[in-house]
Amino acid sequence: MGPLTICELSEHLAAKGVANEVRGDGNRLVSGCNTIDAAGDGDITFLANSRYRDRVSTTKASAIIMKDDPTLEPTIPQIICDDPYLALTLSVVRIHGHRQHPHWGVHPAAHIAETARIGKNANIGPGAIICDGVVIGDNANIYPSAYVGPHVELGDDVVLSPNTTIHYGCKLGSRVIIHAGTVIGEDGLGYAPVGEKWLKIPQAGNVEIGDDVEIGANCTIDRGTLGTTRIGSGTKFSNLICIGHGCEIGSDCMFVAQVGLAGSVTVGRHVTIAGQAGIVGHLRIGDNAKVYAQAGVGGSVADGEEVLGSPAVPVAEARRQFIAVKKLPDMRNQLKKMEKQLADLREIVDKNGARE
Amino acid sequence: MGPLTICELSEHLAAKGVANEVRGDGNRLVSGCNTIDAAGDGDITFLANSRYRDRVSTTKASAIIMKDDPTLEPTIPQIICDDPYLALTLSVVRIHGHRQHPHWGVHPAAHIAETARIGKNANIGPGAIICDGVVIGDNANIYPSAYVGPHVELGDDVVLSPNTTIHYGCKLGSRVIIHAGTVIGEDGLGYAPVGEKWLKIPQAGNVEIGDDVEIGANCTIDRGTLGTTRIGSGTKFSNLICIGHGCEIGSDCMFVAQVGLAGSVTVGRHVTIAGQAGIVGHLRIGDNAKVYAQAGVGGSVADGEEVLGSPAVPVAEARRQFIAVKKLPDMRNQLKKMEKQLADLREIVDKNGARE
Amino acid sequence: MGPLTICELSEHLAAKGVANEVRGDGNRLVSGCNTIDAAGDGDITFLANSRYRDRVSTTKASAIIMKDDPTLEPTIPQIICDDPYLALTLSVVRIHGHRQHPHWGVHPAAHIAETARIGKNANIGPGAIICDGVVIGDNANIYPSAYVGPHVELGDDVVLSPNTTIHYGCKLGSRVIIHAGTVIGEDGLGYAPVGEKWLKIPQAGNVEIGDDVEIGANCTIDRGTLGTTRIGSGTKFSNLICIGHGCEIGSDCMFVAQVGLAGSVTVGRHVTIAGQAGIVGHLRIGDNAKVYAQAGVGGSVADGEEVLGSPAVPVAEARRQFIAVKKLPDMRNQLKKMEKQLADLREIVDKNGARE
Repeated sequence: MGPLTICELSEHLAAKGVANEVRGDGNRLVSGCNTIDAAGDGDITFLANSRYRDRVSTTKASAIIMKDDPTLEPTIPQIICDDPYLALTLSVVRIHGHRQHPHWGVHPAAHIAETARIGKNANIGPGAIICDGVVIGDNANIYPSAYVGPHVELGDDVVLSPNTTIHYGCKLGSRVIIHAGTVIGEDGLGYAPVGEKWLKIPQAGNVEIGDDVEIGANCTIDRGTLGTTRIGSGTKFSNLICIGHGCEIGSDCMFVAQVGLAGSVTVGRHVTIAGQAGIVGHLRIGDNAKVYAQAGVGGSVADGEEVLGSPAVPVAEARRQFIAVKKLPDMRNQLKKMEKQLADLREIVDKNGARE
Repeated sequence: MGPLTICELSEHLAAKGVANEVRGDGNRLVSGCNTIDAAGDGDITFLANSRYRDRVSTTKASAIIMKDDPTLEPTIPQIICDDPYLALTLSVVRIHGHRQHPHWGVHPAAHIAETARIGKNANIGPGAIICDGVVIGDNANIYPSAYVGPHVELGDDVVLSPNTTIHYGCKLGSRVIIHAGTVIGEDGLGYAPVGEKWLKIPQAGNVEIGDDVEIGANCTIDRGTLGTTRIGSGTKFSNLICIGHGCEIGSDCMFVAQVGLAGSVTVGRHVTIAGQAGIVGHLRIGDNAKVYAQAGVGGSVADGEEVLGSPAVPVAEARRQFIAVKKLPDMRNQLKKMEKQLADLREIVDKNGARE
Repeated sequence: MGPLTICELSEHLAAKGVANEVRGDGNRLVSGCNTIDAAGDGDITFLANSRYRDRVSTTKASAIIMKDDPTLEPTIPQIICDDPYLALTLSVVRIHGHRQHPHWGVHPAAHIAETARIGKNANIGPGAIICDGVVIGDNANIYPSAYVGPHVELGDDVVLSPNTTIHYGCKLGSRVIIHAGTVIGEDGLGYAPVGEKWLKIPQAGNVEIGDDVEIGANCTIDRGTLGTTRIGSGTKFSNLICIGHGCEIGSDCMFVAQVGLAGSVTVGRHVTIAGQAGIVGHLRIGDNAKVYAQAGVGGSVADGEEVLGSPAVPVAEARRQFIAVKKLPDMRNQLKKMEKQLADLREIVDKNGARE
């Protein structure tokens, strides 16, 4: 971390596999990354969204990462590459680094059961609770007021943010990050109806989360009623997401904020579910599918399919529907007009017929 | 809890009021319950959703709970009954039991005000906060970092999960379960507009929750501005539900995840509100009504009525609308075709008229 | 606080700038405010929503705040004014007062870093965490299990409710209230796609919140990836709201529960966003705009514009669409009828033509 020249950053990116070319003064120093509007002296910025094209000539940044684009003429040094967003990401890691956790070691005000086994180099804050039979890998960062229930297993390099709750028997892989306030393994909405009363079904299953998963803040992942709720490795969640009991979610998925899955939904790999979308229980969402924002999915979605709307339909059909609905008031008027024309015509024809 | 024979389980179910019949080897032992796909040797499974019919012949379970169905020929022992879901529920209670809470007694690192009165057999974790004037019944399970504000009253057998917040003056009945991260009695969105500024209205009311209520994780229940926000006995909530100030919710309701009620909504008894539905303020939702997933309810709903869509309408009407919207692009084409036909016909008629 | 006569309350309101007139017995004492249905002896109530007009004659309140309305004849003393809601608000402040926080002083079980600087008159509960380099103004109320990360800055008179999380480097103005379970400054959903994997972008920015902001319970405000997520002074949020990284929200806005903003949305001043609405990333919502409940906003919204529906359109257009969709099944029938009429007419015309 720290300042480096454009040329040094270019070499770093090349070493990470991002072919690139410096244009302009490669000896200029950069010490921060910032957005095209907010960047100032010493910052490198980027152009990845064409919405911001016109800012290239006005940005106060010291350098810019962008695609080769002969129609733009930046006045600042450039790092030209095919994937500016990836290059930016690697630059932010190089210049700013990942989050530094406060150092507590194993704080004396953490409550750790005698039967818990904790790996090397643990960082456990005051008020964190580690219950009986817990197994934690190396390099854990467990923030204050995180609750780790009995017999939970955590891999290496796990981060549990403040006020997180991991219920008994759940298993998290290595490099899992759980953001603040998130609850893993609470009981789902499982009751048998007895007349008009609800008889609680013990939620006897658990939750298992693969390696490299990141779960946003204030999410809730229900434990399986029987068996396991699963989240595959490499999957990333935003905030306020609700996963019902018994769901099985594949690897490398991306779920945007406020998504809700009812129980026993199966989601394939590399699926995107956009913000505020909801999925009915017991459905299957295929590999590489995309569910658009606010969609209400009431039927299974095939591999690679993209759906939109509530009720959700394939995205092209949804867009035709949206356009048709937009024109619907016009259609009503047209229909009325045609009705009149038809009646007029009928009258003429009847008159003609009578005349004959 | 523990293993028992199919016949013993059958007798247990009969004793609980579930008439049933064993078919096949009633001496086989079962020691777990599991889903039809995940069940293995020693597990009893169940068939309650016809979606899983074809798995009856392939499940690896040792026994199955199902309805009498001559079209299915399971090769494993069966418990035949009219309500497999209820029989399963009772089996899970018998075999797996309800959640066992970690045992803390009254932990020395819990913070309990001198003026608080706590019943027998309390289990209060480290970092839990019990403020002045709190009254708690017998057998409480209060997890770490739960906050119980001044003058809160809790009945017997209450469970407050980790990181829950119960604000001052709220009252919870007996056997209430509050899942992790849920907040009861925060201030609602109450302001008087003064020009373009917002003047905060003190939220002087409270929340009262009846017996046998279960509230999921990361929910928020606003206190009344004046008077009380009420949740009736036996009502069950999933996660991430928001209840506005002054709502009055009846008994034995079922609210699915991410439901939102604005302020002063009155909900009758035994009402189902499905996931992500929202209700505008000051409405009445009648007894036994059903609000479907993602519905946006802008008018009161009568007893027993079922509504769907945004804006919500009776479910049959909503389905007709959905079908009509699906066919709308076709309708537009048809309308264009008819316009052409009408113009052609007009031309012929005019020509004929001229010829005469 | 405490009981006072109607006349004394009237004088208090006048002193606060609310012109008003007492009708009936001004010497009657009131000691509480309550809703028109729940009010009893000793309470003053109010009529602000015409939905409750018919209760004026049946309320058991001792007095009522209302507009001058010759069509109503209350039998109890009245305070007549132009803005009963504002008068009520001031009455609630006068009679009930704002929330009294439990008194902890700086509790010995709070964990406060040596390098933290804390203003006068602090009230910090057990289990609260104040990290290195934190700066806190005067009169702070920091509840148990609140986490204040490194180098956070808080103004004067800030309230952090239980189980709140404020991540490193975030800045909150004076008189900011953060409700329980809310998370400020967690990492947003920022990844660069590398094949089908997601490479985490360090979230190097922060969150800055202006003076007099109130944020409801269990909200999540992402830190900027680069630069700052901003919430302008005087803005009020309800619960379970999600703000994506890099959003800039103006002053005096009102966001209702379960609203979601994707990343880099710019919101003007005095904007209302109603419950469960969602805004796509990188859009601009103009000053004084209104976004209705459950709207799905996919394009920028002009100053003062009001939008509704998903996808959202101007509210008048949305209402025309809703009506047209409601009549759509009828339209289909009409279209079929016209098709038949047109075919019949064609037949007649063809026959007539052939006859000639």
